[in-house]
Amino acid sequence: MGTISISTSESIQIVDISSKVQSIVSRSGMKEGLCVIQSTHTTAGITVNENADPDVKKDMLKGLSVFDSDDYDHSEGNSAAHIKASLVGPSVSIIVEKGELQLGTWQGIMFCEFDGPRDRKIIVKVIGNGNM
Amino acid sequence: MGTISISTSESIQIVDISSKVQSIVSRSGMKEGLCVIQSTHTTAGITVNENADPDVKKDMLKGLSVFDSDDYDHSEGNSAAHIKASLVGPSVSIIVEKGELQLGTWQGIMFCEFDGPRDRKIIVKVIGNGNM
Amino acid sequence: MGTISISTSESIQIVDISSKVQSIVSRSGMKEGLCVIQSTHTTAGITVNENADPDVKKDMLKGLSVFDSDDYDHSEGNSAAHIKASLVGPSVSIIVEKGELQLGTWQGIMFCEFDGPRDRKIIVKVIGNGNM
Repeated sequence: MGTISISTSESIQIVDISSKVQSIVSRSGMKEGLCVIQSTHTTAGITVNENADPDVKKDMLKGLSVFDSDDYDHSEGNSAAHIKASLVGPSVSIIVEKGELQLGTWQGIMFCEFDGPRDRKIIVKVIGNGNM
Repeated sequence: MGTISISTSESIQIVDISSKVQSIVSRSGMKEGLCVIQSTHTTAGITVNENADPDVKKDMLKGLSVFDSDDYDHSEGNSAAHIKASLVGPSVSIIVEKGELQLGTWQGIMFCEFDGPRDRKIIVKVIGNGNM
Repeated sequence: MGTISISTSESIQIVDISSKVQSIVSRSGMKEGLCVIQSTHTTAGITVNENADPDVKKDMLKGLSVFDSDDYDHSEGNSAAHIKASLVGPSVSIIVEKGELQLGTWQGIMFCEFDGPRDRKIIVKVIGNGNM
């Protein structure tokens, strides 16, 4: 199991972690299988989105503001962050072939901070049919 | 493959099933790999969220009400439940190490009922690199 | 690894690909494990939803329109599609037993086009504990 540590700098922020995940896949020696990337937090999630225009990240954070509200009960005041993290999802699964994450041209693996800035930990596991 | 049966008591309700999932992982004898927890329904999903303050669950259900509407066509009248279940997702994948689900301190595996009360079935599979 | 090619005909459209995925599972010879179905695009995703009444698909597309907005910055003008794809998710994991996808009665695996019509590619991998 590999670990990625991230320190976010904004209250809401999307960070491309694709190259860090690929490094873990490469080190694992696994050539064929599945890579699971998992957030260990409840106000941050993992998804896939465009890796090119940074405006896509900004727009995604803007779009998710439909869940912002003053009408929540949780005393910490970060319920919107919990909702966004649960919807984006705690983990994402990407297929591995020939030792490479099978991402499309524009796909990047995105860590989504919804209640930063914080120090965050992501865990990564490669499951496969052996070191073929 | 393990099975978890749940009878929900509310129309919308979030239930922490982490300990039931851990029991299945422990019984499987698998020490290292991946655990997939899957709803077999189209108006209920699985995600991860905070396991401490119950208000987080209530707020999540409240936040998802942005999808409630009188403008849907499906004759059963539960389209919002279908949408919420699809967005939350039918399954979640959690990494397993040393026989333990690798959940963060505040993470719990949550069954999300969106069209209850009903009897629900969740299936669980542990995939791994052997009983190491 | 199997591949499914789809040419969508609408700007937003949901297509049931369950039987195509089952064909790949059957061809793999894998009897027990996990099937991962992954979109290789950033404006299309994969989820599970009802396979019966077509109105459920229409209502889901309608419900997701809460993310439509004129207030996005991405110059291609398809930010809502990126957001929907990230929320629905790039991949879905379904348990396999006895060579069959373990879908509930009403569950279908749905390819979700959010920026069509386009030619799309889905990749499918079966990971398991051998050809038992």
